[in-house]
Amino acid sequence: MQPITGYGVCKVLDSGHPDFKVGDYVWGITGWEEYSLITSAEGLFKINHTDVPLSYYTGMPGFTAYVGFYEIGSPKKGERVFISAASGAVGQLVGQFAKLMGCYVVGSAGSDEKVNLLKNKFGFGEAFNYKKEPDLNKALRRCFPEGIDIYFENVGGAMLEAVLRNMRLNGRIAACGMISQYNLERAEGVSHLFAIVTKRIRMQGFIIFDHFHSYQEFEEKVVQYIKEGKIVYMEDIAEGLENAPAALMGLFAGRNVGKQLVVVARE
Amino acid sequence: MQPITGYGVCKVLDSGHPDFKVGDYVWGITGWEEYSLITSAEGLFKINHTDVPLSYYTGMPGFTAYVGFYEIGSPKKGERVFISAASGAVGQLVGQFAKLMGCYVVGSAGSDEKVNLLKNKFGFGEAFNYKKEPDLNKALRRCFPEGIDIYFENVGGAMLEAVLRNMRLNGRIAACGMISQYNLERAEGVSHLFAIVTKRIRMQGFIIFDHFHSYQEFEEKVVQYIKEGKIVYMEDIAEGLENAPAALMGLFAGRNVGKQLVVVARE
Repeated sequence: MQPITGYGVCKVLDSGHPDFKVGDYVWGITGWEEYSLITSAEGLFKINHTDVPLSYYTGMPGFTAYVGFYEIGSPKKGERVFISAASGAVGQLVGQFAKLMGCYVVGSAGSDEKVNLLKNKFGFGEAFNYKKEPDLNKALRRCFPEGIDIYFENVGGAMLEAVLRNMRLNGRIAACGMISQYNLERAEGVSHLFAIVTKRIRMQGFIIFDHFHSYQEFEEKVVQYIKEGKIVYMEDIAEGLENAPAALMGLFAGRNVGKQLVVVARE
Repeated sequence: MQPITGYGVCKVLDSGHPDFKVGDYVWGITGWEEYSLITSAEGLFKINHTDVPLSYYTGMPGFTAYVGFYEIGSPKKGERVFISAASGAVGQLVGQFAKLMGCYVVGSAGSDEKVNLLKNKFGFGEAFNYKKEPDLNKALRRCFPEGIDIYFENVGGAMLEAVLRNMRLNGRIAACGMISQYNLERAEGVSHLFAIVTKRIRMQGFIIFDHFHSYQEFEEKVVQYIKEGKIVYMEDIAEGLENAPAALMGLFAGRNVGKQLVVVARE
């Protein structure tokens, strides 16, 4: 039986491939299992910098944040950036990249604990708990009296509609995900799309697999940021493979605080 | 009382501006009236080529089609292009530009007469009457079994949703207008926006005022096309200023066939 797969970090125990030798650490698609037999090197990356936590290499949220913000968002210093699901694996980094660029950054999240993290740990200029806002449009207008230049879209639905009402001329929407829509029978309808015309908005979806040519640049730059303490990163670690299904379900309920990881083994 | 304004073509009867002299033809924003006093030269253009019909200079549908297709659509030879409201002032030209580039072109319109024009006058590869299609998704799948690379968006709403279901990877949507939505109390909700992420779609709104730097290039190229007979253009002419209100209303009911004009005077 094929195991369920996902992104993981592994140590090489045996290898027939010249690029990977015993003792190397690698990240890429692995099974939800203690030992994985990986038969193709495609999508498998050797870890070059082992002086940052190895867990940071699990999956591509950092790289996704990097490409989405810098390449899709086309940010300029001083612009106003809004991030939904902002305390998640991708959002927390987008916010910090934007701060490093001198942008004004606001995030939304689904609990007061997360909002607190955004403001006090990740340095967002403002943050709000969308579950406590009876009117998302008003919440955005409060945080962005002059409107939004860049929206990093992780949730879709009603939030996207409220954002469209608050975008500025020539705004950009980097569409990374729409998690509010994944498990619905029929996706919510989004109104106010005409703002895309009147405000000359560019809304662009992206998937990280198309952007591997930027990976080395990302790794060098962001590992440096981490070492210099310019970026902090928050993980939510479930212990033991037996807790993986619950951790996965928790993502859709918003139970994770930071990037959701499952520790299979600590060595 | 200020007159209602709109785009018009006029002959200069008197001028205190060095760029415009008596007898020149100009186009730009004018009043709905027989004689207009124009106090600012901003947005007023001298007509350089009087060997094409002067009516062609009324407004900017040609320039809009040009910028929207070439600059926003980023077309490549052989791509599959869909245009809604395709027999209108803008759409008919987008289709012909796309044909000239070697694209496969399909248009939708609201009557069999217009569909016939698209296929037999403007050379579209395929066309359909959206009012006779019980399922727009199926109509698009029939016309684009391999999907749509570029959608030139004029209507919004249900058509946009059906298009999103039929876009190809890395497709582009040039959002020029969403006429189906203008007179609704509340705009229709559009579902299936998640396709923007999964298919890495770029949807971009534009307004022609941002693109005047390309005007000369457009005029030279398209006047040439017209003279060579490579482009045909269809107008729907209402006679007399007294018929202007009905002509305007007709646009929203789709009564016009081709670009709607009102002749104030034929001199």
